[in-house]
Amino acid sequence: MPTFTPGYLEQVGEDLFHACGAPVAEARMVAEDLVQASLMGLESHGVTRYIWYAEECLAGHIRPGAPITLAKETGTTAIVDCGFNFGLVSARFMVDLAEQKARDNGMACVLSQNSHHVGRLGTHPQRLAERGLVALAFANSVKAGHFVVPFGGREGRLATNPLAFAVPMNGQPMVLDMSTSMIAEGKIRVLMHSGQPIPPGSILDAEGAPTSDPLAFYGPPRGSILPFGSPDLGYKGTGLALMVEILSGILAGASSTTDLPHINGLCLIAIDPDAFCGRERFVALMQELSDYITGTPAAPGHTGVIMPGGLDFARRDQRMQTGIPLSDETWRLITEVAGKVGVKLADQ
Amino acid sequence: MPTFTPGYLEQVGEDLFHACGAPVAEARMVAEDLVQASLMGLESHGVTRYIWYAEECLAGHIRPGAPITLAKETGTTAIVDCGFNFGLVSARFMVDLAEQKARDNGMACVLSQNSHHVGRLGTHPQRLAERGLVALAFANSVKAGHFVVPFGGREGRLATNPLAFAVPMNGQPMVLDMSTSMIAEGKIRVLMHSGQPIPPGSILDAEGAPTSDPLAFYGPPRGSILPFGSPDLGYKGTGLALMVEILSGILAGASSTTDLPHINGLCLIAIDPDAFCGRERFVALMQELSDYITGTPAAPGHTGVIMPGGLDFARRDQRMQTGIPLSDETWRLITEVAGKVGVKLADQ
Repeated sequence: MPTFTPGYLEQVGEDLFHACGAPVAEARMVAEDLVQASLMGLESHGVTRYIWYAEECLAGHIRPGAPITLAKETGTTAIVDCGFNFGLVSARFMVDLAEQKARDNGMACVLSQNSHHVGRLGTHPQRLAERGLVALAFANSVKAGHFVVPFGGREGRLATNPLAFAVPMNGQPMVLDMSTSMIAEGKIRVLMHSGQPIPPGSILDAEGAPTSDPLAFYGPPRGSILPFGSPDLGYKGTGLALMVEILSGILAGASSTTDLPHINGLCLIAIDPDAFCGRERFVALMQELSDYITGTPAAPGHTGVIMPGGLDFARRDQRMQTGIPLSDETWRLITEVAGKVGVKLADQ
Repeated sequence: MPTFTPGYLEQVGEDLFHACGAPVAEARMVAEDLVQASLMGLESHGVTRYIWYAEECLAGHIRPGAPITLAKETGTTAIVDCGFNFGLVSARFMVDLAEQKARDNGMACVLSQNSHHVGRLGTHPQRLAERGLVALAFANSVKAGHFVVPFGGREGRLATNPLAFAVPMNGQPMVLDMSTSMIAEGKIRVLMHSGQPIPPGSILDAEGAPTSDPLAFYGPPRGSILPFGSPDLGYKGTGLALMVEILSGILAGASSTTDLPHINGLCLIAIDPDAFCGRERFVALMQELSDYITGTPAAPGHTGVIMPGGLDFARRDQRMQTGIPLSDETWRLITEVAGKVGVKLADQ
C-alpha cells in the first residue's frame, strides 16, 4: 500500500478544498483534522473522507466559506448556525466559542444547527483539553443514519451516536471516543469489503434475527445494529444513545423523526478546572490516576491496561515517522475528485 | 413477605433519623428518597439503607444536622462541602444550588466534598428534570469501593461508578441511571444470599480468571467486577468509569488512590432548555422521540421497547397501591437499630 507524509496529504487537502471554494485557512483546517485521524489509524474518519467531502461540495451539500453565525447566545450557552460549511470548520468555531465562554464563566455548552459531518468526534474535546479544559462531546445523526435499534426492538431508531470526553494531562490528554452501539457502520463496510464476517452479537437482519452476514445488514431490506451492551445490557447502550440524541439534537430544537438536510448535531460542554480544584492540582491528580490505572496487573490473555486514547496517540507518533498508508483505490478516487475540481496533484 | 405503606415507612425513617440527631426536615428528606427507591423496586438503595445509615450515625461517620457549606463558588459552579451530613441531605442542597445557577446563567456544575452515600443516583437529576431542567449526574466511590477492574487488568481500580441523565417530559421525566460495570456489588450479594450463580462474564476471581461463584468474588483474597461491555468492548465501560471518576472525584480535588473518609463524590450538571430551544419545544420533541422509540416493532423474544426509567415508574405506581415488601430480616434489623436510638416503632 502506498504511504504518504502527513505534510503532503495536508497540502493535497488544502488544495482540494480550496479549489472547492473554501478559503485557504478553512481548507487547511479540514485537511489537518482528517490527516490527524489518519495518523491515529482511524481511517474511516481520515483522509479517505477527502472524496466524500469534495463530492458534497460539488453537490452543494457542503457550502465552502459559508458564514457561521450565532443563532442564540448567553454568557455560557450558544446555538451555532453552521450554515453547511464543512463540519470541521464549524466545529472549530464551536470549540473556540466554548473555550472562551468556559474561561469567562467557568463552563459552557455550545450546540450546532445545520452542521455537516463533524469528523472524528474526539477531535473537538481533545482540542479543548489541549487548552487546559475538561470537555464532553456528543454527536447524533439525522434520521437517514438511524441504523441502531433501541433495546428490544428490530428497526433502527437511533444512529451510532458517539460520545467523547477529554481532559488535560501532562503530555497528551486523555481522550475517550466511543460509539453507543456494538459496532460502527463504517466497520461493517470494511469487513464486508474484505470478505470477513461481522462479530457475533453486533447486527440483526431485517427480521430482527441475529446475523454475522454484512449483506443481511445492507439488504434491502436493511437490517440494523445492536446497542452497546447487547445482548443482556443493551438497555444501557440505548440509554446512552438517547442521552446523545437529546443533548446534540433535541436540545438544539431538532426533531428526531424528520428528514433534515444536515448530517450531525454536535454538543460541546467545556468546564474550566480553575473553577474547581485548579488546573495544576487537576493535572497532578490525573497523573496519579493514570499511574494507578496503567499499573494494574494484567488479566490472563491481556498485555496490560492503557488509558483511553493511548493507542491512538502511539499510532500517531509511529505514523509521523512511517507515513500514512492509503489503499490504491482510495488514492485513485482522491486523484479523480481532485481532477473534477481542476486540481492536479503534485508528486510526493 | 410483610408489606408496608410508603407513608408509614416515611414516618419510621423520619423518627429514626430524627432520633439519630437530624432535624425533622432533614430526617424526612432522607426517608422520602429511600422510600422512593423502594417504591421503584430498587431496594438496594431503598428502605434497607435505614439500617446502615443509622449505624453510620452511631459510629459518627454520618453527622446529622452538620452544616453544608460552599467551599468554592462562581455564578455557574460550586464545590459543596457536605460536612458528612446524610448524603441525601447534601445532595438535595446541591440540586437546589444547581437549579438556581442554571436558571440564572443557563447551566451549572456542582461538585461535592465530604459527602456520605448519595443513594440512588437517578434521584438527583430526576429532581432537576421535574423542575424543567436537563441534568447529568456522576458518582464515584473512594478507594475502599474499587471493585471494578480496568479493561485488561485483574485488580479493582475503580468503583461501579454510575452515571445518570434525566430530562423533563409530559408526565414522568426520562431517567437513565446505570453503573459502568457488568454488575453492581449489591446484586452479587443478593445472588449469593439466594444461592444463585453470578451471570457469566460479570466477575473475576482473585487470579483474574472468569467465575460465576460469588464466594470467589468476596474471597479473601477478593476478586473483582468486569467493566460494562466486557469481554470485547470493556474498554468502553472503563472509559465511562474514568469519566465518572474524573468528573465526580478529581475535578473536586479528590485523590483516586488515597483512603479518604467520605463515601461518594457527586457531580451534578444542570442545563436550562430555555437557553437553547425553549422548554415547550423541548418537551414536545421529547414526546415525539418517545413515541418513535416505544413504537419500534419488537425483536423476537422481546415484548417491546420502553424509555429509560419507564419500568421504575410503573413499579412505583403499582407499589403506591400494593405497598412496599420488606424481608422479615430487613424489618427485624430496622426495628433493632431503632431500638438502639430509643425509637419504638408504632404498628402500621
